[in-house]
Amino acid sequence: MSQELFKNDIVKKIVEKSRVIWALDVSDSLMGWDIEVSMPQEGAMERGMARAELQAIGQSILKSPELRSLVEEAEKRIEELNDYERGLIRVLKRRIKIATAIPEDLLKEYFKTTSEATIQWRIARSKSDYGIFKPYLEKIVDLMKKFAEYLGYEEHPYDALLDLHEEGFKTRDADRIFNVLEPGIRRTLSVIQIKGLYKPEHELEKVEYNVEDMKNLNLELLKIFEYPLGVRSRFDVSTHPFTTSMGIRDVRITTRYEGKDFKRSMYSTIHEYGHALYELQIDERLSGTLLATGVSGGMHESQSRFWENIIGRSRVFAEAIYPIIKKHLKFVEKYTPEELYYYFNTVKPSLIRVDADEVTYNLHILLRYKLEKAMITGDVKIGELPEVWNSEIERLIGVRPKSDSEGVLQDIHWSSGLGSFCNYTIGNIIAAQIRKHMMKKIKIDEEIMKLNFKPIREYLKEKVHIWGSTYEPKELLKRSFNEEMNPIYLLEYLEEKYLKV
Amino acid sequence: MSQELFKNDIVKKIVEKSRVIWALDVSDSLMGWDIEVSMPQEGAMERGMARAELQAIGQSILKSPELRSLVEEAEKRIEELNDYERGLIRVLKRRIKIATAIPEDLLKEYFKTTSEATIQWRIARSKSDYGIFKPYLEKIVDLMKKFAEYLGYEEHPYDALLDLHEEGFKTRDADRIFNVLEPGIRRTLSVIQIKGLYKPEHELEKVEYNVEDMKNLNLELLKIFEYPLGVRSRFDVSTHPFTTSMGIRDVRITTRYEGKDFKRSMYSTIHEYGHALYELQIDERLSGTLLATGVSGGMHESQSRFWENIIGRSRVFAEAIYPIIKKHLKFVEKYTPEELYYYFNTVKPSLIRVDADEVTYNLHILLRYKLEKAMITGDVKIGELPEVWNSEIERLIGVRPKSDSEGVLQDIHWSSGLGSFCNYTIGNIIAAQIRKHMMKKIKIDEEIMKLNFKPIREYLKEKVHIWGSTYEPKELLKRSFNEEMNPIYLLEYLEEKYLKV
Repeated sequence: MSQELFKNDIVKKIVEKSRVIWALDVSDSLMGWDIEVSMPQEGAMERGMARAELQAIGQSILKSPELRSLVEEAEKRIEELNDYERGLIRVLKRRIKIATAIPEDLLKEYFKTTSEATIQWRIARSKSDYGIFKPYLEKIVDLMKKFAEYLGYEEHPYDALLDLHEEGFKTRDADRIFNVLEPGIRRTLSVIQIKGLYKPEHELEKVEYNVEDMKNLNLELLKIFEYPLGVRSRFDVSTHPFTTSMGIRDVRITTRYEGKDFKRSMYSTIHEYGHALYELQIDERLSGTLLATGVSGGMHESQSRFWENIIGRSRVFAEAIYPIIKKHLKFVEKYTPEELYYYFNTVKPSLIRVDADEVTYNLHILLRYKLEKAMITGDVKIGELPEVWNSEIERLIGVRPKSDSEGVLQDIHWSSGLGSFCNYTIGNIIAAQIRKHMMKKIKIDEEIMKLNFKPIREYLKEKVHIWGSTYEPKELLKRSFNEEMNPIYLLEYLEEKYLKV
Repeated sequence: MSQELFKNDIVKKIVEKSRVIWALDVSDSLMGWDIEVSMPQEGAMERGMARAELQAIGQSILKSPELRSLVEEAEKRIEELNDYERGLIRVLKRRIKIATAIPEDLLKEYFKTTSEATIQWRIARSKSDYGIFKPYLEKIVDLMKKFAEYLGYEEHPYDALLDLHEEGFKTRDADRIFNVLEPGIRRTLSVIQIKGLYKPEHELEKVEYNVEDMKNLNLELLKIFEYPLGVRSRFDVSTHPFTTSMGIRDVRITTRYEGKDFKRSMYSTIHEYGHALYELQIDERLSGTLLATGVSGGMHESQSRFWENIIGRSRVFAEAIYPIIKKHLKFVEKYTPEELYYYFNTVKPSLIRVDADEVTYNLHILLRYKLEKAMITGDVKIGELPEVWNSEIERLIGVRPKSDSEGVLQDIHWSSGLGSFCNYTIGNIIAAQIRKHMMKKIKIDEEIMKLNFKPIREYLKEKVHIWGSTYEPKELLKRSFNEEMNPIYLLEYLEEKYLKV
């Protein structure tokens, strides 16, 4: 099957030898899915033990001289290889590097520290007492600095951490992006506020729904999107919605039902559908190889945000699905499609990232990015973090936390390290960028109005999905859109949507 | 945790080194469960590929010189070891032996042949044409003969195959058992038939039920049994009911809903509960080791049959759960508890093993045992099998198949090898044996009448479950009941139940 794409003999050997890494990934995905969706309560300890054992096998296979020397051999002939072959070598080299760079003792310390830190973060947040979490964060930042040294970097130690989450993404890229985004977003936000263009809240946020009705609404939306439920995918419930895959023919999403504010469940579903579609549309010939998954967190987020925001929160989408929503949720009858659109798009300077709207969201990420970078360079002391957080969010968004739990303690992410937040903004930027390019080929609004998503899916497939991890993110953008990541499109999109009412 | 039981330093090392085998077992169980319960249709191919990769890692770890030499070292000090330590060495040696004995090429041929054979068996059965399956069965019998030679045996080549399914069980044991069972069962059967003591069918077999009601009945029974649903176990639906575990704190059963003849769904549930209870009551200190699972197929079957037959099909159980059944299945109101009991216990000489009653069931197994042994020794030619089957079942049970699909083609088992059928009879025998011993300590009928199953569970725990795989089956029987496997108890049980009306 994959023989069609992999022709070089050494690479063919590598495909065979590295299939076990793929299989271990599949096993880990299934174990992870099961933990969130089906595992009995008390299964956690044994599951953790089994998972750690299999992760350790994976590490030792990645470190094996046999695999390394095959990769080295292939690299000598890199000029002779086709794109798929090069992609496989790139991905495997990267995984070998990550597995090899960090000394085992340090890795153990990392796992120990972060698992304690997660527990302590929960306690700290519930008591809104940063002091409880501080010593753990100090340790984690120290560990991150060591990771950066072992992993290596050219310009900035933070680059090493960013790269773990988004291949090839550097501090320099983040600075470039945020230097454009910050003033643009703040301007848009202030215009919205001054002119009162979008409401900060909507009464539908308080309206309760029947979970069965909500589920049927989600299912009907997925059906409209032609999500291959039961055939190549699943749709389940979990506390935190997520997407995972056990191969490109077994992709699973979840959603949540909180019982009120129905847009939350609906947009979770649409968001995860976006992730799933990426995995589902990967070239079938990559199945069973390390290329058979989305290339990066940021690229993945661009797909979920594209469906959630660009499509899902558009005016035409609100109009197009209005009859469907009304059919399942009777209480919506009271509202016009236009009112629904405003319910879907409240804009409010707020303290909590996960509840932030499209406009303010990236300012929350900017705050975290700045703080992470400053923690790594030592420009911010860990003890000063709450104060710096509070002043900075006030400066950026105009609101000030009253407690640590509303501020520095709100995200779980730092209990397991630094470097992941930028992916959200990368996703938002690329989503807007794809939109702009797609508009040259497809009348997006017209297709949405017809609930005909096929051309949109096909476009995403051709430009992004089909390649899996064949090209690194920057190369993929260059190849498919002939430009680098460009934050202007996001600003334009926000201005177009939120200022031209 | 397991340190409490494993004290010897070499064994402790073995516990650590072999944990990865346990973890791979956990992963394989979860993958298997997921295939039957949750996997999307098209996930099968990638799942098969992933599973095969992980099975291959397991094999290679079992064959590693490191593990072998540790086991050899431990064996030199076997006298110093406690029972748990010896048990672990025994189980690991056995797995190493099985992984090592069969040459890799032969194993590949086996997987190739049996996977084709399974497909061809389905076709053959649907067309009722043994000729389609015959060449595959010939290959499989040849492979089995080779397996026997590589695995080694002392008395009979079939011993090597029996041992794969039931540790330590030999042709000699099977002969001893069936020599007692055959005349006894045939006598009981003929008395039942002549006197018309039990009916061959019941009108309830045709009555349809509502699946939701049936599910609630099953759930209430599981609740009465104190099945720890959601806490340490699950209850799902699959085409063929089964039990699996991913550790002793994550044990999962399934049942089926065919829409009529409600006893089938109910007894599937009770049967699987019996399997699950075995895994759930294993000593927690064995968690994460190769001893943390039931010791053998036959011993496992004894537990499922104990709950299904000894308890579940008893007169008192029918009486005790009558109000519960009536509550969920309104149509049962028409019948008395006594009628229900006869519905639960129809006796009919029949052609199909899986539908056979308690009385005739073991004659079906005897037939298969005889044929398997004769295939291995060459006393029966594969081409003659349908004819031999038909005459032999007519002699044993008094019915003659009209087609191959009702006869030699009815079971899937032979498409993957020989040697597994005896486990069912072993299970029935041990279940009756346990009953006899339990009666000395517990007034079983009185406890059932009170729906108080705790003393029964506790007894099974103490005598069987808690040990996991610490003792091999024969040793466990000796230790717990001070005797060897004794088929007389099964005969007595059947006579007591079916002849003393």
